[in-house]
Amino acid sequence: MADLDSPDTIHDLATPALVVDRSVFDANTAAMDAVLPGRKLRPHVKAFKSTALATRLADDGHTAFCAATPREIEGLVAAGLTDDLLLANETLDVARLGRLADDAEITVAVDSDATLTAAIDGGVRSVLIDVEVGLPRCGCDPADAGRLAERARAAGLEVRGVMGYEGHLMMVDDREERTERVAESMRQLLEAHGAVGGEIVSGGGTGTFDTNTSCTEIQAGSYTLMDTHYDTLDLPFRPAATVVGTVVSVSGKGWIVADVGLKAMGMDHGDPTWTEGEVFFLSDEHATLVPREGSTYNVGDRIQLVPSHIDPTVARHEAMWLVDGDRIVDRWEVDLRHW
Amino acid sequence: MADLDSPDTIHDLATPALVVDRSVFDANTAAMDAVLPGRKLRPHVKAFKSTALATRLADDGHTAFCAATPREIEGLVAAGLTDDLLLANETLDVARLGRLADDAEITVAVDSDATLTAAIDGGVRSVLIDVEVGLPRCGCDPADAGRLAERARAAGLEVRGVMGYEGHLMMVDDREERTERVAESMRQLLEAHGAVGGEIVSGGGTGTFDTNTSCTEIQAGSYTLMDTHYDTLDLPFRPAATVVGTVVSVSGKGWIVADVGLKAMGMDHGDPTWTEGEVFFLSDEHATLVPREGSTYNVGDRIQLVPSHIDPTVARHEAMWLVDGDRIVDRWEVDLRHW
Repeated sequence: MADLDSPDTIHDLATPALVVDRSVFDANTAAMDAVLPGRKLRPHVKAFKSTALATRLADDGHTAFCAATPREIEGLVAAGLTDDLLLANETLDVARLGRLADDAEITVAVDSDATLTAAIDGGVRSVLIDVEVGLPRCGCDPADAGRLAERARAAGLEVRGVMGYEGHLMMVDDREERTERVAESMRQLLEAHGAVGGEIVSGGGTGTFDTNTSCTEIQAGSYTLMDTHYDTLDLPFRPAATVVGTVVSVSGKGWIVADVGLKAMGMDHGDPTWTEGEVFFLSDEHATLVPREGSTYNVGDRIQLVPSHIDPTVARHEAMWLVDGDRIVDRWEVDLRHW
Repeated sequence: MADLDSPDTIHDLATPALVVDRSVFDANTAAMDAVLPGRKLRPHVKAFKSTALATRLADDGHTAFCAATPREIEGLVAAGLTDDLLLANETLDVARLGRLADDAEITVAVDSDATLTAAIDGGVRSVLIDVEVGLPRCGCDPADAGRLAERARAAGLEVRGVMGYEGHLMMVDDREERTERVAESMRQLLEAHGAVGGEIVSGGGTGTFDTNTSCTEIQAGSYTLMDTHYDTLDLPFRPAATVVGTVVSVSGKGWIVADVGLKAMGMDHGDPTWTEGEVFFLSDEHATLVPREGSTYNVGDRIQLVPSHIDPTVARHEAMWLVDGDRIVDRWEVDLRHW
């Protein structure tokens, strides 16, 4: 029987378990470093929610991070990753970050008078002006960016520059079209930057990491672990993460059932992928799978499913297990979960 | 500013937060009790993953529970809910439950020689034979149920009966058709029961709680909190749970953004519902919403989204907040998360 407390291989893990192939992870980070070394990349921790993984990226020179939630920032500070942390998101719950202003360099995004007032009252010392560049989400009207920056400076805050996320362009299939549309979107950000000032123009993501050449830094995180959704693009990154399950039932009617359900997966981009056959459907705690013709599975066999969306998948798990082949070589706590 | 450590009302909560309307919850449980009092219902904790909520059901007389994972069983035992616990699922990780055999009455489902062997070796004392009744998932061929029961008894296990989950019929719209098809599905389970013996015929769920009249006990859990998916059926239960968010950005182009993203929601049944307007789309940590014409939202306002699938939504949260109107009256830990 497997030793579930101190697993040596994938076969010893209590399932479902999130597993990361170390060699694929290493190749992904090397491919990113070749294009965006050091501070050219601001890794987005929302994708992997682990300070162990973030520390690995800091060791490679990416010592500035961005985050989507106050808790992610708090966790980075607790882990000593304090060089340059950006909450790339609006929040009113900003006193949590102001409290840490002596321990870490913390910048928050603001896009309105209300969020700027919260930043001032909350005790943070620097902001970026978040500008809407085509994605229907946060960000001020580009024409309002300069006024917000002026008000922030008048209140004694440092205004480090602008950010704008072209999330609506991440999945544009054709590279040339993607490049053009990103440049067009970023023209609005650069215009706002002209009015705002500061050294930083922050934007981009895994899908536009090398087609967005307008920003001084790119906010990408999913490239580390990847998923089947991003894998449809022409990116130099490959899926490194899978969720491992145990076959718990084998039907005489052609399907098998593993203990990897939709509670262990981000499902907003659809079902995960099984390279050994078809995913029939997922329930809360089950995957019903149809193996390729001619292959035989027994109760107790292990299967691995590749997530369609890595960010919410990671957020379901307490830890990820690093593997070299089947051998477990490390365990990274997913310590930035929840809010 | 809100007191996030000791919240008095919904407006004090750090967001996103899972909130349960106590009066709707009370009405749901009362409606269930009227049809399935006491042991006629075996509440399925996978739907709510909280021993605080389970204790509330036990106080109403539903002292037998079922679970989908070994961790859920371990948590119920730790909370003293030890009367009659069923792992309504196959597992090989059964030694975890055998270890608790002196502390609680634990029964596990088996559907194969391999899972039966695991149950015997793992030290559990009683089993149900899980029978496939039409849902392509776990369960043995009905014709094999008697043989498995015999083998279990020969190994010294108590065989308490059978279970079979007609999950493929939960969402049959027409009540009459649902009733007929459930009866047809359950005929296979009753036939297997004839060969297996024992007192228990376990099955059903929220969607068939009163149309499944074949079982001695119904496994339902979602009825407590409900979701928009089950709410399309003619059930006497109403959505009690919402995820509360804070408006963090208001666009001049007609949308608003709240800090409730898809990481705070089960997305496999699609987007949540907003009763005050349209859900445009969800990102990891954002909901982009379009308010009904004529209504105005400001940064800092609270909004509530109704989940489309409650089970995976609850599993994303550390706690649920019970409310009476806007006032917070209790906090229930979601302590049965993960595996």
